[in-house]
Amino acid sequence: MGIGWRRSGSFRRGSEDFSPCGGYGLEDGGGAGTFRGVNSCASLGIGLAGFGTVGSGVWNTLERNGDLITGRTGGGVMLHVAKILVRDPAKARAATGEVPAERFTTNWRELVEDPAVDIVVELIGGTTDAFEIVAAALRARKPVVTGNKALLAERGVELFALSREMDVPIHFEAAVAGGIPIIRTVQDSLIGNRIHSISGIINGTSNYILGRMTDAGLTFETALAEAQGLGYAEADPALDVNGWDAAHKAILLATLAYGFPIDPGLVHVSGIEQVRPIDITFSKNLGYVVKLLAVIREHADGSVELRVQPSFIAKTNILASVHGVFNAVAVHGDAAGEALFYGRGAGQDPTASSVVADLVEASRSLRQASGHRGFLLYRENGRLVPVEETSTAYYVRFDVTDRPGVVAEIARVLADHRIGISGTHSPVNPANPDAEFVDMVFLLHTCAYGKLKQALAEIEGLDCINSEPVVFRIESLG
Amino acid sequence: MGIGWRRSGSFRRGSEDFSPCGGYGLEDGGGAGTFRGVNSCASLGIGLAGFGTVGSGVWNTLERNGDLITGRTGGGVMLHVAKILVRDPAKARAATGEVPAERFTTNWRELVEDPAVDIVVELIGGTTDAFEIVAAALRARKPVVTGNKALLAERGVELFALSREMDVPIHFEAAVAGGIPIIRTVQDSLIGNRIHSISGIINGTSNYILGRMTDAGLTFETALAEAQGLGYAEADPALDVNGWDAAHKAILLATLAYGFPIDPGLVHVSGIEQVRPIDITFSKNLGYVVKLLAVIREHADGSVELRVQPSFIAKTNILASVHGVFNAVAVHGDAAGEALFYGRGAGQDPTASSVVADLVEASRSLRQASGHRGFLLYRENGRLVPVEETSTAYYVRFDVTDRPGVVAEIARVLADHRIGISGTHSPVNPANPDAEFVDMVFLLHTCAYGKLKQALAEIEGLDCINSEPVVFRIESLG
Repeated sequence: MGIGWRRSGSFRRGSEDFSPCGGYGLEDGGGAGTFRGVNSCASLGIGLAGFGTVGSGVWNTLERNGDLITGRTGGGVMLHVAKILVRDPAKARAATGEVPAERFTTNWRELVEDPAVDIVVELIGGTTDAFEIVAAALRARKPVVTGNKALLAERGVELFALSREMDVPIHFEAAVAGGIPIIRTVQDSLIGNRIHSISGIINGTSNYILGRMTDAGLTFETALAEAQGLGYAEADPALDVNGWDAAHKAILLATLAYGFPIDPGLVHVSGIEQVRPIDITFSKNLGYVVKLLAVIREHADGSVELRVQPSFIAKTNILASVHGVFNAVAVHGDAAGEALFYGRGAGQDPTASSVVADLVEASRSLRQASGHRGFLLYRENGRLVPVEETSTAYYVRFDVTDRPGVVAEIARVLADHRIGISGTHSPVNPANPDAEFVDMVFLLHTCAYGKLKQALAEIEGLDCINSEPVVFRIESLG
Repeated sequence: MGIGWRRSGSFRRGSEDFSPCGGYGLEDGGGAGTFRGVNSCASLGIGLAGFGTVGSGVWNTLERNGDLITGRTGGGVMLHVAKILVRDPAKARAATGEVPAERFTTNWRELVEDPAVDIVVELIGGTTDAFEIVAAALRARKPVVTGNKALLAERGVELFALSREMDVPIHFEAAVAGGIPIIRTVQDSLIGNRIHSISGIINGTSNYILGRMTDAGLTFETALAEAQGLGYAEADPALDVNGWDAAHKAILLATLAYGFPIDPGLVHVSGIEQVRPIDITFSKNLGYVVKLLAVIREHADGSVELRVQPSFIAKTNILASVHGVFNAVAVHGDAAGEALFYGRGAGQDPTASSVVADLVEASRSLRQASGHRGFLLYRENGRLVPVEETSTAYYVRFDVTDRPGVVAEIARVLADHRIGISGTHSPVNPANPDAEFVDMVFLLHTCAYGKLKQALAEIEGLDCINSEPVVFRIESLG
């Protein structure tokens, strides 16, 4: 596939133009043209089954970043939403005015069978209708992307057998830990590792509730009501608080890591309903934090331990610092060693981010595009910001001759350049309180580095300054 | 590709048997057979250019986990090292007695041109010979895997142009942050995101030195000497401490995230040589930690800021907790939100883990295997550990009738079951110091849950116990 440096045309944004080869030219030379089945520059149609939080997040992400994705794939991947399955089109239309009415359907067979639909995204949840939709899509030889952890944990063995039989993929990055790419990591990045263990905080609702019980002394019931009020917990929060949402995710991770089917009936799961304020108090006093933890661990004989429970972990453990609705998964592989993946475990945009990554992978598999991507240079007017234009706060250390007036002289130059000072410090050396040469530290407010450089050049000219000042940035990493 | 549940044969270990279809049968039914070019069950030959720390790590990982990889790919990927480029075969043989002598060569052309070599792994470093080897491999249409950040940061634009021209991939997960899959994450998992920023601690040597300066009050020079003594820093540590190793990695990440070529000459880089104990002292007093930070950030106008410098970051920032030779990369995407990837940034096995993941990807691209993997059930005798056989320490809360002898009764039952007690606590309720029903907490040493269950069943029979005890695990997450 000979995708080259795009030499003409500019970024299109929020495009509704799905005409083949839109603004994205394939470079003429070189390529072996390995796309098959689908025209190499036509847009692929997505059938969205479900248009709730995540479904509309997928729509929004494709609207916002569709052109960026096309650029990053060297023109190889263009995507548009061809059909949307909803319960009530009138309601859905009201919520998302920009979706043309004819794209909605209330009949899932119509969505799966629509020739304009190349890839089916299942986001309706549950294990019955969702199973029918996924199975029908595979039989129609349409790749499936799903975020449905319950479906795959309960009926994944059947569905993946059908996937192999039909030679059509199921992608499910969105099913575990929202925006954290833990499925790809276990499946691809750690493929050379024997996985010793996976420990994770993979239910944000439980983590939020435990956090509020810990930080604000709330009871379970009050914290749960708060989480529901903020939209973190479902109206029926059962699967979140009884541990089964986390257990479904853990089953998927364990199946990938260890390669045998795991019977959910044999998994030991308990939720956070039993946690009382007294347990929180004790855990604190003892140096622990209470977390709903999924633990997956291979024993020496190859057996696999898998359980989900509220657990005490040491305050100093990195998982203890995972707050609110964030998720984190710690993996220990025999080659990679310890690794931790942290991020937003749920929510519209993070989950949509994973769905979209899977859509790109599904597109590639449909087109059998070769795997090489490397530096795909899709931005012809990219510009590196000159360091002079970058701004942070600063720590500046001067080597000065200690005499009255030094601070005033330096401060005056900074003031001339309109650079604010947040503090100055000059430590007295107890061993030599009358030293002639001392270190003098200035803390400066945020300004462009170019401005600071000019001021420092001037300050270096002062006769109290003995050598080039040393500058460190103070990064807010906001 | 119809890869199925493998029904016969057992795991082979450390195999030297590269015969086609070894113990791994492809299921007969169903598959469309999309492997092309290379026989679907023959082993692929790797040419290892360089057999130092990482090269021998790759050899070891394939020896140890080769069969696991084959299982995880449904029999689709078998790998063996066909040829090894070394400076001195006598020395290399002495170091690795099990490598057959005829696999060594001192001539890189012989390695690249050997028909037994399907994939070339470049691990010799530098930007001259390494460039020739990679370019020759691409021209010979052999996929390349490399860990050479300097090569790709300095000459990647040329090499990836050749890669596209020849339609042959270059994989480089090992080039950035050792065992952390950050390249795949930026390239694939976050492909639907506009990347707002990437901030990383991506040079373990500098991080180790700064940590020792902070924790032990060492000078830069002493800490560097210590790092060299421990093998963390090279004999010539220039690229580590002057910031350029981190800068090369940051250039790769920025090129992937933003899609335009970045001239290393325009990147602002400074290293940790200027950091003095006084700066460490000040940073502590001010609530900061000094870290060598790579900062990549997109400005509102699309320009990209990229710099590597020792920086002050707030003690409470998660990056401040990255200690020793660990690496961490924080990415902020417009859809995924904040995410952090943490792990071992260098070393034999972690880097080999990334090389091996790339080898699998290269194998798949060679064979155009379809992308669906899902639950590949490669272990026929997998066993889930019954929860009764899992062991941790425990926190057990009893609801007891408060009377003398309660602790002794419970403790006796635990002793009968040989379960150790590390502490007992019964808080007095200040509002009701004479309450009849109280919470009594026991902290128990590690034992099998089954044993604890038996003891608790017995304890529940005591007439001082009013309801079912509540058990939380104390996880050491070793």
